[in-house]
Amino acid sequence: MANNRLRVTPLGGAGEVGRNMWVIEYDEEIILLDCGVMFPEAEMLGIDLVLPDITYLRDQQHKIKALLLTHGHEDHIGSTPHLIADLGFPPIYGTPLTIGMVSNKLKEHRLLDKVTLNRFQAGDTFTIGEHFTIEPFHVAHSIPDTVGFGVTTPAGLAVYLTDWKFDHTPVDGRPTDIAKITELGHRNPLVLITDCVRVESRGYTPSEATIGEAFDNIYATAPGRIIIATFASNISRVQQAIDSAEAYGRKVVLAGRSMENNSRIALDLGYLRAQPGTLVRPNEAGSYPDDQIAVVCTGSQGEPMAALARMANKDYTHVKIKQGDTVVVSATPIPGNEVSVSRVINNLFRLGAEVIYGSHAGVHVSGHAAQEELKMLLGMLRPEFVVPFHGDYRHLMLYRKMALGMGTMYKDEQVLVAENGSIMEFSRGFGKIVSKAPVGYVYVDGTTVGDVGNVVVRDRQMLARDGILMVVVGIDRATGGLVVGPDVVSRGFVYMRQSDDLIDATKEVVRNTLGGTNGQFNGDTEVDTNFVNRKIKDAVSEFLYARTKRRPMIIPVVMET
Amino acid sequence: MANNRLRVTPLGGAGEVGRNMWVIEYDEEIILLDCGVMFPEAEMLGIDLVLPDITYLRDQQHKIKALLLTHGHEDHIGSTPHLIADLGFPPIYGTPLTIGMVSNKLKEHRLLDKVTLNRFQAGDTFTIGEHFTIEPFHVAHSIPDTVGFGVTTPAGLAVYLTDWKFDHTPVDGRPTDIAKITELGHRNPLVLITDCVRVESRGYTPSEATIGEAFDNIYATAPGRIIIATFASNISRVQQAIDSAEAYGRKVVLAGRSMENNSRIALDLGYLRAQPGTLVRPNEAGSYPDDQIAVVCTGSQGEPMAALARMANKDYTHVKIKQGDTVVVSATPIPGNEVSVSRVINNLFRLGAEVIYGSHAGVHVSGHAAQEELKMLLGMLRPEFVVPFHGDYRHLMLYRKMALGMGTMYKDEQVLVAENGSIMEFSRGFGKIVSKAPVGYVYVDGTTVGDVGNVVVRDRQMLARDGILMVVVGIDRATGGLVVGPDVVSRGFVYMRQSDDLIDATKEVVRNTLGGTNGQFNGDTEVDTNFVNRKIKDAVSEFLYARTKRRPMIIPVVMET
Repeated sequence: MANNRLRVTPLGGAGEVGRNMWVIEYDEEIILLDCGVMFPEAEMLGIDLVLPDITYLRDQQHKIKALLLTHGHEDHIGSTPHLIADLGFPPIYGTPLTIGMVSNKLKEHRLLDKVTLNRFQAGDTFTIGEHFTIEPFHVAHSIPDTVGFGVTTPAGLAVYLTDWKFDHTPVDGRPTDIAKITELGHRNPLVLITDCVRVESRGYTPSEATIGEAFDNIYATAPGRIIIATFASNISRVQQAIDSAEAYGRKVVLAGRSMENNSRIALDLGYLRAQPGTLVRPNEAGSYPDDQIAVVCTGSQGEPMAALARMANKDYTHVKIKQGDTVVVSATPIPGNEVSVSRVINNLFRLGAEVIYGSHAGVHVSGHAAQEELKMLLGMLRPEFVVPFHGDYRHLMLYRKMALGMGTMYKDEQVLVAENGSIMEFSRGFGKIVSKAPVGYVYVDGTTVGDVGNVVVRDRQMLARDGILMVVVGIDRATGGLVVGPDVVSRGFVYMRQSDDLIDATKEVVRNTLGGTNGQFNGDTEVDTNFVNRKIKDAVSEFLYARTKRRPMIIPVVMET
Repeated sequence: MANNRLRVTPLGGAGEVGRNMWVIEYDEEIILLDCGVMFPEAEMLGIDLVLPDITYLRDQQHKIKALLLTHGHEDHIGSTPHLIADLGFPPIYGTPLTIGMVSNKLKEHRLLDKVTLNRFQAGDTFTIGEHFTIEPFHVAHSIPDTVGFGVTTPAGLAVYLTDWKFDHTPVDGRPTDIAKITELGHRNPLVLITDCVRVESRGYTPSEATIGEAFDNIYATAPGRIIIATFASNISRVQQAIDSAEAYGRKVVLAGRSMENNSRIALDLGYLRAQPGTLVRPNEAGSYPDDQIAVVCTGSQGEPMAALARMANKDYTHVKIKQGDTVVVSATPIPGNEVSVSRVINNLFRLGAEVIYGSHAGVHVSGHAAQEELKMLLGMLRPEFVVPFHGDYRHLMLYRKMALGMGTMYKDEQVLVAENGSIMEFSRGFGKIVSKAPVGYVYVDGTTVGDVGNVVVRDRQMLARDGILMVVVGIDRATGGLVVGPDVVSRGFVYMRQSDDLIDATKEVVRNTLGGTNGQFNGDTEVDTNFVNRKIKDAVSEFLYARTKRRPMIIPVVMET
């Protein structure tokens, strides 16, 4: 590593490049930007969360001077309690709302007394370590108090923007700080690191203000209760639901654990505002007429245990869906969730609700910049190098194509297409991927981190496809002859009670196999259990495939007696 | 059942209502419309196909006079070889291309000599049994030779349209037969049964002709090979790829087994046209310059074993993706496939290809009617009752809302929102759901139908979530004392090699449990294996949940010695 260069590395998590965590290095100092979780992909069976792989930072904890957080969404703060110990408990920096949300998480994990929390305001300037001057600036997103960072180092100025858009009429009245961005642009930035996830969407992302209008229309005409599902962390959307409720004389119920938690923090810190008496508890909802109630709840992604799915399944105590209810799905399905969202909507219709959803309904806008905004940002900053991130590989490629399409401003090598773990170095006239940090998936399953790895997930995939079949035999230690069994137990392969013939035939295959090997164990050699194991596995596997064209996992259990 | 009424019933398959099969009854006669498969939903782990549940037809085979097919797509003909025997081998009717495709399937299943195949042309009129007069009419769809049916019975005229749109410039030059539809409209139809899957899409579905223009643009500018992925059954799209190739001097390779099969049938029957020499074999592709080759392949849904995914994984012998290749994904991901399609696109970009995909690229249009077309059809036919189908429950509800929005034409009770298995009866002035046929999922897994049911799939879901842990013990028949083991084997739960402590502790729990039960088996009572089983299961399950917050399936295997 050349010591006079700025070094930046996105660390994994699943899927989108660099969405969850960035490592910024200069000389012997490191700062980390964000520490989020990814939600597991469909084939990561049984996994609850995916953390960034911080192997690259192992043995470098002493260099880590700070963890800087941009905003309070799960994919940017959610790994903090899981990883902060392994990172050596660096001090955490964020705006008041972000710190409020991360401290709530640290408290739940009993880690609050182990870390220093530093609150800053957009517009502040502060230094970290010897080499970093940090200038957070406000950006509009779907949660208040979101920032980007100017990071000045001896190698030059890096500008970091994740989860932003140019919303000129945001819910909290604080648009993206264009003045600050253009000012940074006048300082000849070395590198821009920017979110590009909506590069496929042409034009500009509509303002959050359009949602307020759509909500007002719904509140003005809905005959009964209004139930709005959105992300629990979409504080701006919750504010809009409350604003419309106050304008149209409704009480608001916040439903779902994470909705209640996040809203409580935002209310306490003044980022969510409600008049006294607007908010009522779920169990109080029944005492108001239906047309005076609005419910804001979790479950917009069809999550089976969240409030909306439970309502759709008639499993939510305080809200039983009925004719006259209007349900608003104020979110877009994240890829992979389309089917579960669709199922929830179908069930809500079945229960008699009117459901307002989908891209034409005008009840959701993205929190991310679309193509013209991405170009506008490039025009404002004109950095020497650009690293697009927070997207799949295809988004990064399209971003490069987009940048190269902007006249003569950029050449191919100025737009770096990185993957998780790509270590990039920058100095004037130099910007390259120089090496690769190891990155894999770190799974959280239940309470534990890391004990479920790829082997376990692959086994689950195999079990999910064709199930498992166990063959239990007791064999004579000396002769290898069958003395107990064979017993056959299977799950997820065939319905055992209706498959006596197949099970009996399988036992016969095992008997024949052991009879065949019998001779090999006579005399003075001892039985080799592994060998017997392998013989049973092969014979049964082959037999079952021929009969069913399926390949259940075969587990022989050979007990010597 | 009132004998003077027409009775119609959609039979399952998963998901969309009535997509795969309809039962039309009058008096003691039945005709079946279509016999298709559904592809399994994500949580139907390991399932290959889902068939309609024909329990309702059991013991009624003698009444079934015909199976009428509308077109050659899998979701309309694919169950025929699996179900035709259980249906009592009724004669099959279809247009020449449809019969060509279904006879190919029957041949593969060695059933061709068991059934009578009857070819008709759109515009024919024929009778079936005592009561049914059938008038097939041409509709535009993404495969040639698609028809709707007029079905005249003593109770009145039913009009059945699935998979249709008003494309005035289709690839094969045969637009939807509007003259026939309006003529049926003048006969005062009793009921219209119509596809409504695109009711969420406003306006009109664009013509297939727009794809031809988009392909021409790509062929005119692509520097190297062109690789177009689409549905193997989208014969019209394959035709367009061939037409453009011939216009721009390229040879065409058809890649993927189902692409080759379907194209071969369509070529033989004259529904797909190519000049002599245009089509070349995959292994000949290498002998032409890149800019003289177009590959038309399967895999547009990201299916891992199809040609496109294999190309993306560098696992397809005859086409190695490289810089200069242009890949066109000429399809929209079916809900549930978004992530796998996205992964294939990312990998193609990684290999250096230019990839053209997505709704803005203009390389795919739906084969189904959008909202204004659905209204136009209603205006043309003015049936007394309407049954929307081929959609989720929400589509049916939106269709009803749409119909009610067309001035005073329809009242609520004239638009029937059915579910799979809803038995409806119609006569002048009468149209209602009168009862419910049993419908469930019939799974095909491997070679067998029906031996994998809900129990097996639920087990797979459980195995997929937290894996399995087997405890094997040998106990003394008389005392219940532990004489062999405990052995613990697990898959998909924890990585066993790194979890010695947990496994040892689990064994200890088993030992303590059996020690605890020891007393109960003393004296003259025999050991109750089920009881020991249950004790082990409860103790281990509780222990592991407390330690890991996971619930693997626990399988105790208790051997008495």
